[in-house]
Amino acid sequence: MNAIFDTVPCWHDHTPAYTSTLRARRGQSVTVRLKTLLDVQQVQIKVLVYGEIYERPTREIAPVDGQGRWFEADFEVNAERVRYAWQLLLADDTLNFSLAGLTHTRRGYRDWFSLLADYQAPEWVWERVFYQIFPDRFRNGNPDNDVQSGEYLYGGRPVIKVDWDTPPDRRGDIHAHYGGDLEGITQALPYLEDLGVNALWLTPIFESPSNHRYDIRDYRKVDPHLGGDAAFEALMRAAQERDFKVVLDGVFNHTGDEHALFCRALHDHEAPERDLFTWKSQPQKGETPYAAFFDVPTLPKIDYTSPRAFEEFIDGDAAVVRHWLRRGIDGWRLDVAQMIGAGGTDAGNLEVHRRLKRAAREENPEAYVFGERFFDAEHALETGQGEDGVMNYHGFGLPVMEWLAGNNLRGHPVRMTSEELLDLLWDAWHALPAPIALNQFNLLDSHDLPRAMWRVGGDRNKLLAGLTMLMAFPGVPCIFYGTEVGLNQPEPGAMPFCRVPMPWDEGRWDSALLEATRKLIRLRKATPALQRGTLRLLACAPDAVAWLRELTHADGRVERAALIASRSSTPAPITLTLPEGNWVDALAGTEVGAGGEYTLELTGGTILLSR
Amino acid sequence: MNAIFDTVPCWHDHTPAYTSTLRARRGQSVTVRLKTLLDVQQVQIKVLVYGEIYERPTREIAPVDGQGRWFEADFEVNAERVRYAWQLLLADDTLNFSLAGLTHTRRGYRDWFSLLADYQAPEWVWERVFYQIFPDRFRNGNPDNDVQSGEYLYGGRPVIKVDWDTPPDRRGDIHAHYGGDLEGITQALPYLEDLGVNALWLTPIFESPSNHRYDIRDYRKVDPHLGGDAAFEALMRAAQERDFKVVLDGVFNHTGDEHALFCRALHDHEAPERDLFTWKSQPQKGETPYAAFFDVPTLPKIDYTSPRAFEEFIDGDAAVVRHWLRRGIDGWRLDVAQMIGAGGTDAGNLEVHRRLKRAAREENPEAYVFGERFFDAEHALETGQGEDGVMNYHGFGLPVMEWLAGNNLRGHPVRMTSEELLDLLWDAWHALPAPIALNQFNLLDSHDLPRAMWRVGGDRNKLLAGLTMLMAFPGVPCIFYGTEVGLNQPEPGAMPFCRVPMPWDEGRWDSALLEATRKLIRLRKATPALQRGTLRLLACAPDAVAWLRELTHADGRVERAALIASRSSTPAPITLTLPEGNWVDALAGTEVGAGGEYTLELTGGTILLSR
Repeated sequence: MNAIFDTVPCWHDHTPAYTSTLRARRGQSVTVRLKTLLDVQQVQIKVLVYGEIYERPTREIAPVDGQGRWFEADFEVNAERVRYAWQLLLADDTLNFSLAGLTHTRRGYRDWFSLLADYQAPEWVWERVFYQIFPDRFRNGNPDNDVQSGEYLYGGRPVIKVDWDTPPDRRGDIHAHYGGDLEGITQALPYLEDLGVNALWLTPIFESPSNHRYDIRDYRKVDPHLGGDAAFEALMRAAQERDFKVVLDGVFNHTGDEHALFCRALHDHEAPERDLFTWKSQPQKGETPYAAFFDVPTLPKIDYTSPRAFEEFIDGDAAVVRHWLRRGIDGWRLDVAQMIGAGGTDAGNLEVHRRLKRAAREENPEAYVFGERFFDAEHALETGQGEDGVMNYHGFGLPVMEWLAGNNLRGHPVRMTSEELLDLLWDAWHALPAPIALNQFNLLDSHDLPRAMWRVGGDRNKLLAGLTMLMAFPGVPCIFYGTEVGLNQPEPGAMPFCRVPMPWDEGRWDSALLEATRKLIRLRKATPALQRGTLRLLACAPDAVAWLRELTHADGRVERAALIASRSSTPAPITLTLPEGNWVDALAGTEVGAGGEYTLELTGGTILLSR
Repeated sequence: MNAIFDTVPCWHDHTPAYTSTLRARRGQSVTVRLKTLLDVQQVQIKVLVYGEIYERPTREIAPVDGQGRWFEADFEVNAERVRYAWQLLLADDTLNFSLAGLTHTRRGYRDWFSLLADYQAPEWVWERVFYQIFPDRFRNGNPDNDVQSGEYLYGGRPVIKVDWDTPPDRRGDIHAHYGGDLEGITQALPYLEDLGVNALWLTPIFESPSNHRYDIRDYRKVDPHLGGDAAFEALMRAAQERDFKVVLDGVFNHTGDEHALFCRALHDHEAPERDLFTWKSQPQKGETPYAAFFDVPTLPKIDYTSPRAFEEFIDGDAAVVRHWLRRGIDGWRLDVAQMIGAGGTDAGNLEVHRRLKRAAREENPEAYVFGERFFDAEHALETGQGEDGVMNYHGFGLPVMEWLAGNNLRGHPVRMTSEELLDLLWDAWHALPAPIALNQFNLLDSHDLPRAMWRVGGDRNKLLAGLTMLMAFPGVPCIFYGTEVGLNQPEPGAMPFCRVPMPWDEGRWDSALLEATRKLIRLRKATPALQRGTLRLLACAPDAVAWLRELTHADGRVERAALIASRSSTPAPITLTLPEGNWVDALAGTEVGAGGEYTLELTGGTILLSR
């Protein structure tokens, strides 16, 4: 079963008219409502209580929005995730209403609506647009702190200072440092403010020998080549003044091999630090004697069997997680969140994340914690006990880019249909409780993937279709630095080419793309339906898709935003039925009409609004 | 995404040609194979290892069945449930192959194939057909042990001995005893052997005041009114002689209020037995002071916070679970398995089941343990750590009967489509690892539901369609006593009317139905594809459905069985494509043909075989 298309004559979602609160404590009563246009005799609600489904009557209430018939029920939130669904009795039929739509069969719980108990997570993320910065490649604000060629050895060979305009080189990039730093980011804040983004995710900034800094030597010092702690303080002050949030990259799966704890552990078999890592009893020839990230010797994997590992990194009094939240950051992005665990494996993964999130919230109740999980993360998220959300590669970024580009990350063709795209987006979205789905960190690309512009072969319209989808999908949008000016990469592949330096010569910018991106960001920030509305699939055509975001206020007032995106280089037709309203094309600024069936033709993407 | 229809030009399943073993130990290597008719350039396998997906090459091998192209890969089973999927590279496309079929998107893990580590469960159940007996109503083998009218009070009123031919009465049945007993079952074994069933599930037989015996007074004594321990021993001996397995009903969610432990706990607030139950600090007016099953005072709920509860019932040296396995039973059916837990709730439910199954296996490695879970049980089963299977109401019995009958348990109309039926069956089936799906305990009705014959309005053809589906669906079939002779109930509703006594006057039997049921049971027992084959959906029509069961031996030899079932009272057409083979209608004994497209018209159901 898939998606609810707009033709379903029944509605219920997590927004205020339909759900009294998303923040119930365990044992608290919640009121939920159903609207229907069907000629029902009775409406019941089924609630899962301690393993058993209870069917309960509902009471009919005056239509909150003046339309159809509305029914209301209360139940106690008595489990971590309480499941519920509706049952409609008609004269000659019985229907179940869940996230599988109207069905005669009682669906499995994965399709039921749900509410979480004692769920707390920051809602500020719903109103923000993130910007991902890879510090070495974004902007050189202070050439004095640049890594100098030959300054030190990395992997046995001297590091190299590379000129800003030199494209990354497949073999040389591992030793290349471009000189980007935190002062550069501070200098760029006016540019970013003008672009409209208002939250930053910085890939690692702590003392490390590599240009990517995922091999951390000291988690409590900002790398001097990025300007050190002083530059960090200055950036944080400037960010606060301009109302930017800042999220850092937490590498808690592995340290760098120059980390003091690892060095002691490696060289002294009696050292107490020994238990921070996993030692192989009989390493194979050529293997490291310790577990390492993808067997890369410079990245020894932390063993969360050890209480010391939790103490040092996660939730000890001075743990790294706490340290930087105390210094003012707004959250953590967690590197390879799915790998973290005990004994060289992912054993106990969710327990590490539970403790990490708890520690983060103790330092800052509004801290946002999201994981890098390149794969399906439903198991980690579905009860609200793991991270607040994850980098939504699985449920957004990968399928959207494959649909748009017609190829996969490796450049191999993929002939995905529009139905398949919507089906996958729906499958992943509907399985998560609504507030968690809204916390997902959406992105088209990153420092680990080919740039979106590369994927779409430099086609600005396709990229704009992707950016429009990004702003219009449930979750928190994030733009990889440079995407907004049309930054492309010099060669096929992902790393190092996607980590191309940001051009600051405006003559090299695609100013039409920049202006369009600005508009999209502004629209996202001004549109509550895009920030916290539910998702309804609207339509698909061979080369276009459409979905609706809908937010119904407690007083019945509905705000709607409809996304339409095309992957065609010539205007692609799509027929969709818009609910009644006063529809305008928010990007073109044109009137659309009062709802009903429309056939639109477009390249790129647009968002229609109705209030 | 739903079902795999037979048109998919790719195959992989759990049977020997495609999967080397279903019984891998953790760390052991397994070989899996893919067959495809597509023009592939490369086939890869994706395996989830410690949270990360690894894409690995496969090797092409000689076609095991002489058709298409075959690819093979090995991987270690290094987690409780290892997920894997295939990736096919074509010249101009990239496809994923999972239980969602061929897709361009990488599906969520729920759709992936999977293998369990260290999974042990009895396979004898696959080859058996169960028969459910409600002892008081099946056969009175010894009138001397009958409950006599007025013999004792039950719920404050005298019990009544009722004549075998008196239909159950809505008000009076609670006090009615018909006199059925274990000696009656022993006497009926030749009849049951002739019918073909070869495993019995008896609803509770332990000392209890009610006719259903779910309010147990003494878990270690067979009720004297059923013939006591001697009759049990005799039944077990006779069952063994005739190769019948016997499974008893374990009521571990609650005891009866006459149970000695409960009596002590209720009357002595200092008694150590007090901690076996959950006591309310402030019972509401009219409430019992203790937690009880659905607040029924006679059914105090056992609290598995207490180690004493585990000791007494689950896994102590002399626990009830062990006691009866030592006395020779072949397994347990667990009453309201989904409710069992701590503190008056289902907290810790799966831990109770894990310990219960472990204790059962210690006593008898071949013990079969299945739960009554009236609802979606995926969360309890999906890693293989809960029960071996559950009463498959959710994924088989309820939707099949709604589709056939056009009404639900309450008699309200339900206009389910055939697509919806197949979609739900597929959704529930594909989410479970194959050996667990094959362990599911399938049924059309039971002592808690309206009789199937009642649901279908006495239509023998519809009932036969249901029985044919029951024998042909993955899982263990169970027939409720009397179904085979057309036993109907006297009034609408479930209990007590479904618990109508078994007629032993053959003049009242539907002998055509009995003969057809015999044939179906014989066919099921003679057909390995029905016992252990995979499931493929074949076709659906407005009033008919078809699916395929397929078992491919290690040498490439394929056994296939195709189910076709109709819910129409006039012959309903259905068009389906059968794989190449030598197809015969196994019930009619007629030849069908060599495969290809067929349009068949039928009422009831049939099974086609190809070898």
